[in-house]
Amino acid sequence: MATPSPGYSITVRVEVPAASGSTAALTTAVASAGGALTALDVAESRTDRLVVDVTCDTTDERHAALITAAIAAIPGADVRKVSDQTFLLHLGGKLEVNPKVPLKHRDDLSRAYTPGVARICLAIAEHPDDARRLTIKRNTVAVVTDGSAVLGLGNIGPLAALPVMEGKAALFKQFGGVDAWPVCLDTQDPDAIVEIVRALAPVYGGINLEDISAPRCFEIEARLRGMLDIPVFHDDQHGTAIVVLAALTNALRVVGKSLDDVRIVVSGVGAAGQAIIRLLLAQGARDIVGCGRDGAVHSGATGMEPFRQWIADHTNPRHETGSLREVLAGADVFIGVSAPDLLTGDDIATMAPGAVVFAMANPVPEVDPIAASVHAAVVATGRSDHPNQINNVLVFPGFFRGLLDAGVTDVTDAMMVAAASAIADCVEPGELNASYVVPSVFDPHVAPAVAAAVRDAAAATPGRRPSDSSPTSG
Amino acid sequence: MATPSPGYSITVRVEVPAASGSTAALTTAVASAGGALTALDVAESRTDRLVVDVTCDTTDERHAALITAAIAAIPGADVRKVSDQTFLLHLGGKLEVNPKVPLKHRDDLSRAYTPGVARICLAIAEHPDDARRLTIKRNTVAVVTDGSAVLGLGNIGPLAALPVMEGKAALFKQFGGVDAWPVCLDTQDPDAIVEIVRALAPVYGGINLEDISAPRCFEIEARLRGMLDIPVFHDDQHGTAIVVLAALTNALRVVGKSLDDVRIVVSGVGAAGQAIIRLLLAQGARDIVGCGRDGAVHSGATGMEPFRQWIADHTNPRHETGSLREVLAGADVFIGVSAPDLLTGDDIATMAPGAVVFAMANPVPEVDPIAASVHAAVVATGRSDHPNQINNVLVFPGFFRGLLDAGVTDVTDAMMVAAASAIADCVEPGELNASYVVPSVFDPHVAPAVAAAVRDAAAATPGRRPSDSSPTSG
Repeated sequence: MATPSPGYSITVRVEVPAASGSTAALTTAVASAGGALTALDVAESRTDRLVVDVTCDTTDERHAALITAAIAAIPGADVRKVSDQTFLLHLGGKLEVNPKVPLKHRDDLSRAYTPGVARICLAIAEHPDDARRLTIKRNTVAVVTDGSAVLGLGNIGPLAALPVMEGKAALFKQFGGVDAWPVCLDTQDPDAIVEIVRALAPVYGGINLEDISAPRCFEIEARLRGMLDIPVFHDDQHGTAIVVLAALTNALRVVGKSLDDVRIVVSGVGAAGQAIIRLLLAQGARDIVGCGRDGAVHSGATGMEPFRQWIADHTNPRHETGSLREVLAGADVFIGVSAPDLLTGDDIATMAPGAVVFAMANPVPEVDPIAASVHAAVVATGRSDHPNQINNVLVFPGFFRGLLDAGVTDVTDAMMVAAASAIADCVEPGELNASYVVPSVFDPHVAPAVAAAVRDAAAATPGRRPSDSSPTSG
Repeated sequence: MATPSPGYSITVRVEVPAASGSTAALTTAVASAGGALTALDVAESRTDRLVVDVTCDTTDERHAALITAAIAAIPGADVRKVSDQTFLLHLGGKLEVNPKVPLKHRDDLSRAYTPGVARICLAIAEHPDDARRLTIKRNTVAVVTDGSAVLGLGNIGPLAALPVMEGKAALFKQFGGVDAWPVCLDTQDPDAIVEIVRALAPVYGGINLEDISAPRCFEIEARLRGMLDIPVFHDDQHGTAIVVLAALTNALRVVGKSLDDVRIVVSGVGAAGQAIIRLLLAQGARDIVGCGRDGAVHSGATGMEPFRQWIADHTNPRHETGSLREVLAGADVFIGVSAPDLLTGDDIATMAPGAVVFAMANPVPEVDPIAASVHAAVVATGRSDHPNQINNVLVFPGFFRGLLDAGVTDVTDAMMVAAASAIADCVEPGELNASYVVPSVFDPHVAPAVAAAVRDAAAATPGRRPSDSSPTSG
């Protein structure tokens, strides 16, 4: 499925003769090598020569080299430089830390720093809850990883994970107005991770765990939730579960079925799969079968780690065993958060009529979505080049916006379900169809709606810590 | 020495009759209560009433209450609200995290996030040194504290220390263009602190330790320096030492003496005192006596912790014992980083002619600077309301700017001495006099000069890690 992508965009700076056919030759060279030209800019011009910046999307580095060679092969062309847009964008990193207060004059320093700041310190020493009003704790989330399960790249470690964490933080601010900071830890020991996050927690109003492999992520999240008085949320688990619930809510509306009636198969019982299963059960689903690498998870099996044992004990009411293919027959809903190319269109054809297929393995889904849509009523993936992109960006910015504004100490199922409903309802009834069951990530209504839903759910929670629920007050 | 300060600035919103004498009555009330009026703004105006915002500096909260009462006592006046400028400035904290890259369209996401970011991760996984080029590691410093020695407040803990760390980070960006992030640790165990900072280090190009009490700060810095491949710098130690050396360099120029000839007494052998002594020794000072709570530090004493033992073994060549007062007699230079009101003008009078007195205990110096200047040739403090303010803000922004640009793994004495010279030389010969031995913190030449000096010193260091030395390249 390799098509040219902006993630592999290059700019080739080439000098060519200033003849009338020159730019046409450039366009032809790019097309003949299979590149997607996106821009042609004249950087310099003289009577006899032109310097042109040719920007195009490619499929990968090898392809980029082929395109560059095709350009270089044009008679009279001289390639000066090849810039990779993605690498250029990353120079020096993607985040900056800026003061919110003036620091131009001595009086400014006297208030923002010594001696005025001492009074703020003393106020917090006396009333620690004031930190939520008087410091960045009000609006700041730590994005914490150990680099053990980054995107589709696996265990690449904390340093190589940093660009992803920077991107996550940038999205938090862009979509939710949340200040987020990357915490990439050079340890994979759960005890150490728990202790480090506990020690770091004073600065933050919430913790977003990211790209930490299962099953350690379950233990780490559970222990931190027990230990901290700020909310802890592993986005790979719950962000995925929330957006899946939102998409499923709308998909079931399209096919006219109800969550408590449908047979659901979940492929993948790692972080995302387990959290999806838990949230669907909380929302009333009664017939879920989870499948791992060894087929259906069932309570007859032994030797499972505790979190998978919980899944075995709470799902698969008909005690199905067998492969993914086998348990898929007759199912109403397939949710894949596992591996590429596990199923074919024929497998989808064995599902019940009005089937819903969410194939979210990234970048290559469990089943080719085009093949799946021959048989299924609603098909969704994690990809941006197909309809119905199921993307956690719909969740985490607004979700943490709501958590921070409500000043809660914990994340509850009620908040997660409310967020899912809010996302689903961003697709208005008149807009809802099989190709549009989730809003676009660029829909500006989504994050505020999610934040409001979380704040409302928090306000309805007994025993929550009193705090300002207005986002604009201190 | 309590005078009204902008650190205690309040705004009193008061409704008064719209008679011609009303604003005069407000001004009189503030003055009579000893406040310093800084602004009078009409917030609302009607034919018969005015609402006025009266802003004034006060000395402390009790004084602010007196001034408010004086305003309330004006016939016909109705105080609506009292706002504390310092507290208002701190609402929601003093820092924000912003993306440096566009995130408006799908192509933006494809480069800054998935799938494009994966290529950056793989590049770093393959060549970890690329992180300095492709991530925030290029420009970011952690400001690390455990809250055990904050300003003059002592051990107030990590949460109460956060406003100071936010302020520090704001100053790093404002003066040095350095991105800095507060790390406030809820532990005071040196082993834990060292391990946590080691685990956090992937994200950062440098570590600034801050407000960690002696002697733990010495061990923590030394162990981290041995462990990390990024520079580690405890500003309370070395920032203070560098700016003291700069001021002393110029002060000795004013009085016509040489560092290797003068007798120096340092009051305070904690973090700042020990670092000052070490740096002066490195720069050629030969006669330094350090004084702690028990008087002069000398090699005849026993039971000292190892860092103080080092001081005992390397200073006090004439084996002086006795109190601070006693060893001060005949000294050329007094440097105080200790406690308030240890000395009087008469004690300064026992010093050598052309004495240099740096009394930097904060907020109340070791000796009243006005009394000291009766006898000393050059007097400096840490205060902004006297000439010659010795302030670490002259050091740390430019120093880390230079460290990050040079891409060094360690801080060397050569870099510190070079920074001190650069600061001293920001005072031109035609400007130098007894009341101007250090530049103003707002002099825009200081940070760039310090950064350039550090880069030059780094370039001259054998074995340094090769990297870009230009601040503008990736």
